[in-house]
Amino acid sequence: MILDGLMLKTKILDEAKHEIEHKNLNLGLGIIQVGDNPNSNIYIKNKIKACEKVGIEVIYKKLDSSIVEEKLIELIESFNNDDNITGIILQSPLPSHLDFDKCSSYILSSKDVDGFTKENVYKLYLNQKGILPCTVKGIIRLLEEYKISLEGANIAIIGRGNIVGKPLAMAMENRNATVTLCHSKTKNIKDITRNADIVISACGIPHFVTEDMIKDGAVVVDVGISKVADKIVGDVDFDNVKDKASFITPNPGGVGPMTVAMIIDNLIEMGEE
Amino acid sequence: MILDGLMLKTKILDEAKHEIEHKNLNLGLGIIQVGDNPNSNIYIKNKIKACEKVGIEVIYKKLDSSIVEEKLIELIESFNNDDNITGIILQSPLPSHLDFDKCSSYILSSKDVDGFTKENVYKLYLNQKGILPCTVKGIIRLLEEYKISLEGANIAIIGRGNIVGKPLAMAMENRNATVTLCHSKTKNIKDITRNADIVISACGIPHFVTEDMIKDGAVVVDVGISKVADKIVGDVDFDNVKDKASFITPNPGGVGPMTVAMIIDNLIEMGEE
Repeated sequence: MILDGLMLKTKILDEAKHEIEHKNLNLGLGIIQVGDNPNSNIYIKNKIKACEKVGIEVIYKKLDSSIVEEKLIELIESFNNDDNITGIILQSPLPSHLDFDKCSSYILSSKDVDGFTKENVYKLYLNQKGILPCTVKGIIRLLEEYKISLEGANIAIIGRGNIVGKPLAMAMENRNATVTLCHSKTKNIKDITRNADIVISACGIPHFVTEDMIKDGAVVVDVGISKVADKIVGDVDFDNVKDKASFITPNPGGVGPMTVAMIIDNLIEMGEE
Repeated sequence: MILDGLMLKTKILDEAKHEIEHKNLNLGLGIIQVGDNPNSNIYIKNKIKACEKVGIEVIYKKLDSSIVEEKLIELIESFNNDDNITGIILQSPLPSHLDFDKCSSYILSSKDVDGFTKENVYKLYLNQKGILPCTVKGIIRLLEEYKISLEGANIAIIGRGNIVGKPLAMAMENRNATVTLCHSKTKNIKDITRNADIVISACGIPHFVTEDMIKDGAVVVDVGISKVADKIVGDVDFDNVKDKASFITPNPGGVGPMTVAMIIDNLIEMGEE
């Protein structure tokens, strides 16, 4: 069965629009992009479209790729001090002369819509209420929609990045799943993934996950996005895996739209506090 | 083979004493205890003894169990401002009316010898250099001493507490191990532990780990401490497991002494900066 992120996104945005109007929330999203990464351009376009759909103002600054750290931090701080901006996104990746973790740490934790700052990571670690990274929250929400229980589930996560793999492991563990975090140095990865009730891949290797890596009836979630010959390709070999999995995300159309929907969800959550 | 934490502790303290004298380091450990927990009394006694052995001054305050949060925080702040105190331990557990995570967050991260504060947890998360929790560092150091490689190792950690399980999972993962974090809600735990090259138990259930849970030649590390009929008992059924394991910690005499040794190690690391 398909985990239809596109459909769920539409539903969530409809509800969000209603909630924003009903509660008369004044929300504003500040987006900072450095350089002209084509993937970032697409992601940002999608974020802006979602905001427009639900009635959230967007302040979008695109900076030259040569900008120095000091100037970027100045802009972040001006967004921090702007009452019309209730959430800030620093679009990754940054050009190599800028340190993403350092620069994003200047975002006020109360405006940290991506959930990447120290304050929110620490809350996640302690299993306290905080802002969850949008992709992590989107995956959880998608699984919930299809009544896929995390409690006691054995989950293999492939990829240990700071944006998906690591926070996802903590969030799943906080929901009483048993998580194995796999990565490029993992030995016998098939033995691990074949034992998992849920396999979530976020490693960015095209078609890495094949049917021999999952057990019958497993749930398969594909977070990865790669470009192969100008085509977007996921981590999961969908056609190869789909008949063995009980539930599977398409890619595109699975996790991607959920990430966008959760930006709106986080903005509302932060705006209500 | 026995992973002899007691012997290694002695070696580390000898080296530490030499280093402190040689570099003329002025180190001071502030210990705050609330109430009169008998286990805490023993742990603190061991910490004080180790400090005395290597030439670190100890300032030990034992507060009445009824103390209010405000007064405890006042004491932490006076320790923060005291130049003679270079590291602070807030001994856990606290009485139930006090929130350990909240109170310990007042400790300056530069004096956070236990590595529990937000700053150090965030550094661990990002795989940056910071102060590692003493038990975590002690386990890593003990395995290193016996040339047990973490790179690519499959590790099952049993217990997901904030003091051992969770930070240990991140630290091992940062060293390129593949970690499965198991806990009370884990299903089929034997299937996971039997696949592990290294099994580390920190769940506090007496003799939880038995020989049918480990594979031949696995490394077994016992962090747990329970009291059964006035006797200290570990998480591992030592006699039952010892012939199947390639390396195993005794308990007591394994991880416990290493934790104490790493307090000294962290104090030196912090004092040198």
